[in-house]
This record gives sequence, C-alpha cells and structure tokens, in this order.
Amino acid sequence: MSKMNVEKYTKNYFMPPQIDMSWAFKEHPGKAPVWCSVDLRDGNQALVIPMSLDEKIEFYKMLLKIGFKEIEVGFPAASETEYEFLRTLVEKDLIPDDVTVQVLTQAREHIIKRTFEALDGVKNAVVHVYNSTSVAQREQVFKKSRENIKKIAVNGAVMLKELTEAAGQSYRFEYSPESFTGTEVDYACEVCNAVLDIWQPTADKKSIINLPSTVQMSMPHIYAAQIAYMSQNLKYRDNVVLSLHPHNDRGTGVADSEMGLLAGADRIEGTLFGNGERTGNADIVTIAMNMAALGIDPQLDFSNMPEIINLYESVTRMHVYDRQPYSGSLVFAAFSGSHQDAIAKGMKWREKEKPAHWTVPYLLIDPKDIGREYDGDVIRINSQSGKGGVAYIMEQKYGLDMPKKMREDFGYCVKDISDRKHKELLPDEIYKIFHDFYVNIEAPLSLIDFKLNKTADGMRNGTVHLYINGNEKRLSAQGNGRLDAVSNALQKELKINYSNLIYSEHAMEIGSSSRAMAYIGITGENGKNVWGAGMDTDIITASVKALISAVNKLL
Amino acid sequence: MSKMNVEKYTKNYFMPPQIDMSWAFKEHPGKAPVWCSVDLRDGNQALVIPMSLDEKIEFYKMLLKIGFKEIEVGFPAASETEYEFLRTLVEKDLIPDDVTVQVLTQAREHIIKRTFEALDGVKNAVVHVYNSTSVAQREQVFKKSRENIKKIAVNGAVMLKELTEAAGQSYRFEYSPESFTGTEVDYACEVCNAVLDIWQPTADKKSIINLPSTVQMSMPHIYAAQIAYMSQNLKYRDNVVLSLHPHNDRGTGVADSEMGLLAGADRIEGTLFGNGERTGNADIVTIAMNMAALGIDPQLDFSNMPEIINLYESVTRMHVYDRQPYSGSLVFAAFSGSHQDAIAKGMKWREKEKPAHWTVPYLLIDPKDIGREYDGDVIRINSQSGKGGVAYIMEQKYGLDMPKKMREDFGYCVKDISDRKHKELLPDEIYKIFHDFYVNIEAPLSLIDFKLNKTADGMRNGTVHLYINGNEKRLSAQGNGRLDAVSNALQKELKINYSNLIYSEHAMEIGSSSRAMAYIGITGENGKNVWGAGMDTDIITASVKALISAVNKLL
Repeated sequence: MSKMNVEKYTKNYFMPPQIDMSWAFKEHPGKAPVWCSVDLRDGNQALVIPMSLDEKIEFYKMLLKIGFKEIEVGFPAASETEYEFLRTLVEKDLIPDDVTVQVLTQAREHIIKRTFEALDGVKNAVVHVYNSTSVAQREQVFKKSRENIKKIAVNGAVMLKELTEAAGQSYRFEYSPESFTGTEVDYACEVCNAVLDIWQPTADKKSIINLPSTVQMSMPHIYAAQIAYMSQNLKYRDNVVLSLHPHNDRGTGVADSEMGLLAGADRIEGTLFGNGERTGNADIVTIAMNMAALGIDPQLDFSNMPEIINLYESVTRMHVYDRQPYSGSLVFAAFSGSHQDAIAKGMKWREKEKPAHWTVPYLLIDPKDIGREYDGDVIRINSQSGKGGVAYIMEQKYGLDMPKKMREDFGYCVKDISDRKHKELLPDEIYKIFHDFYVNIEAPLSLIDFKLNKTADGMRNGTVHLYINGNEKRLSAQGNGRLDAVSNALQKELKINYSNLIYSEHAMEIGSSSRAMAYIGITGENGKNVWGAGMDTDIITASVKALISAVNKLL
Repeated sequence: MSKMNVEKYTKNYFMPPQIDMSWAFKEHPGKAPVWCSVDLRDGNQALVIPMSLDEKIEFYKMLLKIGFKEIEVGFPAASETEYEFLRTLVEKDLIPDDVTVQVLTQAREHIIKRTFEALDGVKNAVVHVYNSTSVAQREQVFKKSRENIKKIAVNGAVMLKELTEAAGQSYRFEYSPESFTGTEVDYACEVCNAVLDIWQPTADKKSIINLPSTVQMSMPHIYAAQIAYMSQNLKYRDNVVLSLHPHNDRGTGVADSEMGLLAGADRIEGTLFGNGERTGNADIVTIAMNMAALGIDPQLDFSNMPEIINLYESVTRMHVYDRQPYSGSLVFAAFSGSHQDAIAKGMKWREKEKPAHWTVPYLLIDPKDIGREYDGDVIRINSQSGKGGVAYIMEQKYGLDMPKKMREDFGYCVKDISDRKHKELLPDEIYKIFHDFYVNIEAPLSLIDFKLNKTADGMRNGTVHLYINGNEKRLSAQGNGRLDAVSNALQKELKINYSNLIYSEHAMEIGSSSRAMAYIGITGENGKNVWGAGMDTDIITASVKALISAVNKLL
C-alpha cells in the first residue's frame, strides 16, 4: 500500500530487563516536579538565528518571572557569546539566591576550567557533563566498546570532581547518558551508577541523573518503563534527583514527561512552547498547564500568557503554533454552531450556579486564567457558526439580548453573509450587520413623532406623525397602551396586516448609558416572520421605532 | 507560587469501574488501524475560513492518493456547500469502489432524509449520529437526566435504522457518545449498548462505536483504560468497530490514539497534521509515520510529504508548524556542531556498512523517504555549528573533500561569520566563503606560468613565472617533483619560510567535469597554520595554485 520504504525501519530502543508498568495505576503526577528550563541552551542551539546577548537576558528575566528555579544558561566554554552571557548574569547580579544556574560542559580539563571561570561568583550551580551511550553512536561516531564509552563517563566524573574540589567549589553535578533512548537500559544504568560511585552524592549534595530521549524512539509507556527501571536500579537513589529530558520526534514529548514522572522521575528539563532541536523539547507550558487543569499547582505562573508569547516570539523568531495547547491563537476558538451554543449555555449556567470548579463544555480551562479574553478568542463567527454564538457575542460585547426567535433569524443572516463573503466576521462587523438589518429602519415608513394621551379609561389616544415614502402623514391612533395604539394606527389607517406581535426591550448596559433597545417580531399575511429593533434614549420611542422597523421589513 | 487560579480546577473525567492496564505490556500497535480522515468535517469546521467546494475536492483527491479508505465528507444536511460537495463526488464519479464516505447527521427525520438524498448513488456509506453524554452537557446544555439523554441516543438509532430500511439502503451506522471523556464510563457503555441493541450489528454489517476525547481531560493511559473498559464491555463486540476520535487539548492526541489502539480500538478518526477544533484532532501523519518508523506498514503513503504540505497549506490556509513531527520545516535540521558531526559520521558509516536498518544518529527516519533532501533540510549552518557540518555540506553538495585539519580551520571561519552576521548561512554562501578564503588567491603572488622539465635523475628543473605585487618575475626552480620545485623556488628565491606542507587533491565530481581541486596547508615561522586551495583543469596547476594561495595567506 505505502510507497514508503517501511522495511528499512525497525525498533532501535531497548526494553528494560524488568518491565514494571505499575506506575500506570497512578492517575497523574500529583505535584509539580523540579523544572529546569533549557531554553537558553538546547532551545537556543536549535534556532535558525540564535539569540543575541540582550535577547538571552530578556528571556532569562522572563524565566525568573514565570518562576523557574533551575535554568540551564548554556555551554560557557563553547563560545564567547555564551561565556559573556553567564558573566553578565553574575556581574549585573541577575541570579537570585534561590535560583540555580546550570552549565553544560565537556569533560576536558581546559574546558572545565574555563567553565569554572564563567561561574565565578555564582552561588548555586549545576555543572552538567554528558557523553553519548547509544549503540548507534558507539558504533558509528565514537567507534568504541561499551567498556570504553563507560570509561569516558567515569573519567569525566573524576575530572569534574577533582577540579571542583581543587577550585574549592561545591557545585552540584549532573550526568546525562546522551542518546539514552538508543542505549541498552541496563548498560545505561551501569554507566550512571559508575558515575555516581565517583560522585558519592549525599542528602546535602544530591547528584542529578538526567535521561534524555535525545531521539524519541518508542511509545511513551515504554520510555516510562525504562525510567521505572532506572529509578529502581540507580544507586544512592535517595540522593539522586532523577531528571528527564524528553524530545518530541514522535509527537509524544508531553506524554513522555508525564508518564516518566509517574514512573519515578523528579525533574523535567524542557522549554517554553517545546522549542528545541528538530521537533523540539518537552513543552513545559503544556505539562505545567496540564497539572493546573487538574487543580495541581505547577509552581510556575502562566497567568500572562500573551506577554510570554510576545517575548518568546520576538527573541527566538519562532512562532507559537495556532493549535499549540493552551498558548496557540485558536485553542479556545469555537466556530461551530453547536460548540458555541454549548459554551454560551455553559457560561450562563456558571454565572447562575456559581459551581466550585470549572466545567464549561469545550473549554479545558478558563481562557481568562491565562490572560486571554472570551471576546475574540473563544466564540468566533464564520459560515460554520450558528445563532448561539452570534447571540452570545452580541450579548457579551454589545449588551444586546435578542428574543430567542430573533437570534435564529439573525444567526442565519450572519452565517449566510460569512458563507458568501468566504470570511470570518469580527464582532464589529456583526454588530454593523445587526444595525443595518434591524435597527431604526426608516423606509418606506419613517417616524417623525407621536403624541398619545391617557384617557379616563386608561387607554391611549392621539396621533402618529410619519413619512410614507417621503410624504408626511398623520395617523390617528387608539389602543390600550402606546405601542398598541401605534400598531393599531398602522394596521387600520395604512392597511398593513400582521399578527403575533412579539415584544421585548432592555436598557443598554454596555458602552452607552441610558439608551434603550426594543425588539419586535411580527408575522405577515404570508406567514413570514420579520424582526425589527429600535434604539432610543426613550424606551417608548425605542419600541415604536422597533415596530416601524419590523413593518418596514415586512413591506 | 503560581498566580494562576489553580483551585478552580479539578478532574472532570471518570475512571472506569474496572481498571485494566494490561495493554501497557504491548510495545506498539503492531498493525495499521482503519483510518478515517475527518479533515473535511471536523478539520474544516475549525478553520478561520472553511474550504470552498473546489478546495474540498482537491483535498479529497489528495486523501484518496494518500490511501484513505474511509473519509468523513461533512454534514450534508447542514448547509448547501456540504450538500453540494457530496453530490459533486457522486456526480463526477469520484468515489472509488473500495472507499467509504461517512456523513454526519442529527437524529431528526427531515435531516436524515436530506442526508439520504445527498447520499443517493453512493455505494459504501457510513451514517454517523451522535449526541452529547457528558455530565457538563447533560446538566448545563440539555438539562436532561441520564435516562433522557440515553433516550435521545436510542430514538436516533431507531429512526436511523427505520428510515434506512424504508429507503431500501444498507448504509453502515456509527454512533458517538460525544464528550465521552467527560462521561461516566459505565454510563457511556450503557448508552452505546442501547444503541447497538437497536442496530443489531452483524459480521456483514458491523456498527462503529466512536469514542471521542472531545476535550482531552486526563493523561493518555487513563483514556486507554477507559477504552479498554469499553472494548471489554461493549455488546456484539465482534461486530463492532471500536473507533477513537482524540483531540489534543493536553498535547497528547498522538499518545491517546496509540495507547487506545493497544487497549483494544480498531480505528482512528483524525486529520492531516492534526488540524481540527481548538488544539486539533489526532494527527494521522504522526501516528502513521510513528508506525513506519518502527517498520510497521501504516497503509498510508506520505512519501511525497512536501506536496501534501503544499496542498494542505493552500486550501486550509493553516501552516504546518516548523517543529511538527515528520512534516515541519525544522524537524530534520541540525544546527549544533556535535549533532552535525554525528550525522555526517553516521551517514558515512551507513554508506560503507550498508546496514539492513536505518540507525543514523539524531534522525528518526531517513528524510528522503518522505521526499525531503539532506541538503538544506538536515545540516544547516549558523553560529552553533561546527566543522563536521560545514565539511559535510561542502562534500555532499559541492564535492569538496578537505583535509581534516583544514575542515577545522574552515569551520571556525564559517561559525565566526555566522556569529557576526547573526544569521544562518546557506550552502551557496558557505561555498562562496570557501572560495573567497582559500581558492586561487592571487595577491601578493599571482601565478603566470611555470615550465619544469624532467632531468636525467628524475628531478624537475625550470622556471616559475609570476607577478609579485604586480611586478613580473621569473624564479628558477628545482625539486624532486613539480610542486616541490615551485615550493623550493618560493622559499629560496623569495625568502618565504614555512614548513609542514600538507597536500591533498581530488577531481571535482559534482557539477563540473574534469577539474581538479588541490588543498595545501603550511606552517609559517610563527607556528601559524594556513590553508590554500587551487582549482584548475590541470591537476599540477591546481596544486601550484593551492600552494601560492596558502603562501599568499601566510604573507
């Protein structure tokens, strides 16, 4: 069937020697992990145009504001820019006491020494060393045996420890068996344990073992089983912070992270919006917001998502994808009529019932909690939309509360215009359509004035003064109220026949003070329903104008 | 910590009465599911500008070409456009015999009848009815009891069956308990079983039960546990096709789909690139390619991904995100030096060893298998890049095989330029830098000609004719070869001192026939290494030009 060369592929990952899936009986992580942002390193190195020094500093300040306590700031010995960045943080006193900066380094003496120079004056630091352990890299890139690859790790661990002690520093250490997901799991564990034997982590000075899915190769529950094995077989486990560093090649970076946490991990290395090499890193925004949506405090603050997105897009020159969970421009948008209707009803129900928790249909979270607006972000109108959505916008944004049947009429009208124009209609355009179609329609009849006095029996009696096709005319009017009197005048004196007058009105609460809006529906002789609306500072005048608008539409 | 209103949220999903996680011991789905594209319905209704009739037809034809056998074509009774689309498919004979079209309908008599009119002449059809079953929708939108919501489903099933029989048709049926993920799982099962009791599916005419994560509310293994329960508790299970329709609110649409398949599902409804309401539907491209990457034939053909992306972007007016697995513009890109180096070595190893399976580091699949090029797509050069990547591009694209030490020199040079210019460098720009820096450098020395005759003892003897700062000069030259003779002439007659001459050359295989490229490195008195290159149709002339270029750089 497929023309693709499927036989060329096979699984390149390894099952752990013992397969433990008991973590799957936990529903969710329960509490926030330690977060480590690698935006300034792994994220930055994957950009078409890496960030400048100033851009990095802006990004770093935003990470602090969001609440990150561990931030990988780069590979200071690799380039002047990265060295300069860390020095600037130190010299401008930009590292709060409760924040740890993490630096990547190779296990080579002059590189480690240069890294320490970059760190001079930093209170809390993690020095992160790595080497690649996968079958592919051992065979193709390093052309070394398992034993010799382990030696690289151990020698690096020894050198890091000795040079740190010699420098009189107490940096914490992190080791990553890079390309972990292509490594035999028991061998990866053996390498990590050999490193830990050198470092001898204690409760006061824990070591970090970081397990990257450098390339995602398996389903997420398999990665979790690998993590479970590592968690159960690492030495000094109580003094090890087990960290994950998932990528997203199979589109499951979030699932890898969440399941890895269930399987025993304590810490996540990831980036905002999943920026990073190729398909990106674990998206910390999504993982954190997934916790928030279950009522778990993620210990990170995304309450001003639009501001975070703006800065991210400006300094990385990447774009947040329209459907990126929580952050994309379309993720709260409902164009479809049935969704709009359910959201509108859910919002009304929520207002009335004031339930303890968020349960509005089609919206996983309240957009307002991350700085988004209902208006424009949620209910959006195109040819797929219906009366519920249109009426919701008219009510929320313009304070127009049309009768139910009129909503249907207006919904079809808007849908039809959007379909013919082949475009989305913005609230202002819809409001204009509403006005053009219904409000104060002045032809062929146009109201000049009316005078209706109360009679002894409580009736109204007087004249209606109007233009008919531009010709002035006075009608005599009687009825049991003013609107009724005008209606009678139109029916009797002008021989306009209609029935089933439906009437409602309300004050306009939003945007304009002390004006009234009246809606009137009538049924013509042919059985056709038409609607009109009237707006005026005087409620009675508004209702008369609404009636004349409806009659004009009938004519 | 977080300023977000976390207490407002709680879990809105339900655990099944029995929790079975035994599916987690399967590694992957093993075989392709039945795929159903909902691009033309769920995907289309989420677009800012829905597709026109012509655009829908183009998209539909592409779906056929990819290999879809089930395609939801819309809600034909909902609008003229959707009705017209299905009629066009029928009238233009665009539905192959092995393809089933699926239509969505509400369970109301005139709507079902109109749907049947739209289907007139279709050979294989699925008629899809749904109603919302979640607690939120029952309470907030429909304000009906569980019993009454079940009645809506059953009445719909009865009406659909009766009207189909009355019309003499044999359409297959699909039922979706919409908002399944917010529904008590045993209740959802009860509703589905009540529908199945009406339809009485047989082996010849199976029914489809479709379980949407209308809004994703839980981790993917919880969704899988819900699916496992449904699979084990649905009646007529052998005659039911269990279908999934995952969305992506928590960024785990792919994981939901894959785990749901392990848990017993047979079919996936999704879209290309995950287009769809809000955060989108399950991304069929990713799920299918995840299978292919494990050697499982997905029964869909994405071998021409760029063409598919182009059409998709043009008719939906959406963009495929840069880091979208398999399809994004950056998903095979390696900017970082160490990644480039490993890829270059992996590619070389692959060429030499010809292994049965794809194992190149950092590349989950061979980009060529989906129509992407190494060139430009994989190794890309900016300030994060190193010698390996630069040399790889020069070799692959321009046939330049520099000596190892020269690669380092050129790597630093390119990285520095990219860093200063603050931009990515394209292969052509790098090739130009190579030429400007190394090839046929003509000042202060510029070769005019040389004549070197073989002497009786096998030595070379003659003259080198050149300009020095524009002044013509003839040097007498002796040596054990022509290059040696020129080098001696430069050293002795012009008093230019250097040592450690490194030399290599090769024919240019790509782009130009019968030209030679020579590379020469020399070490000056100050210990500085410099490199020059010479290009000429004659190999000896090329090497002399290379030497003069190197000497010029030394001066």
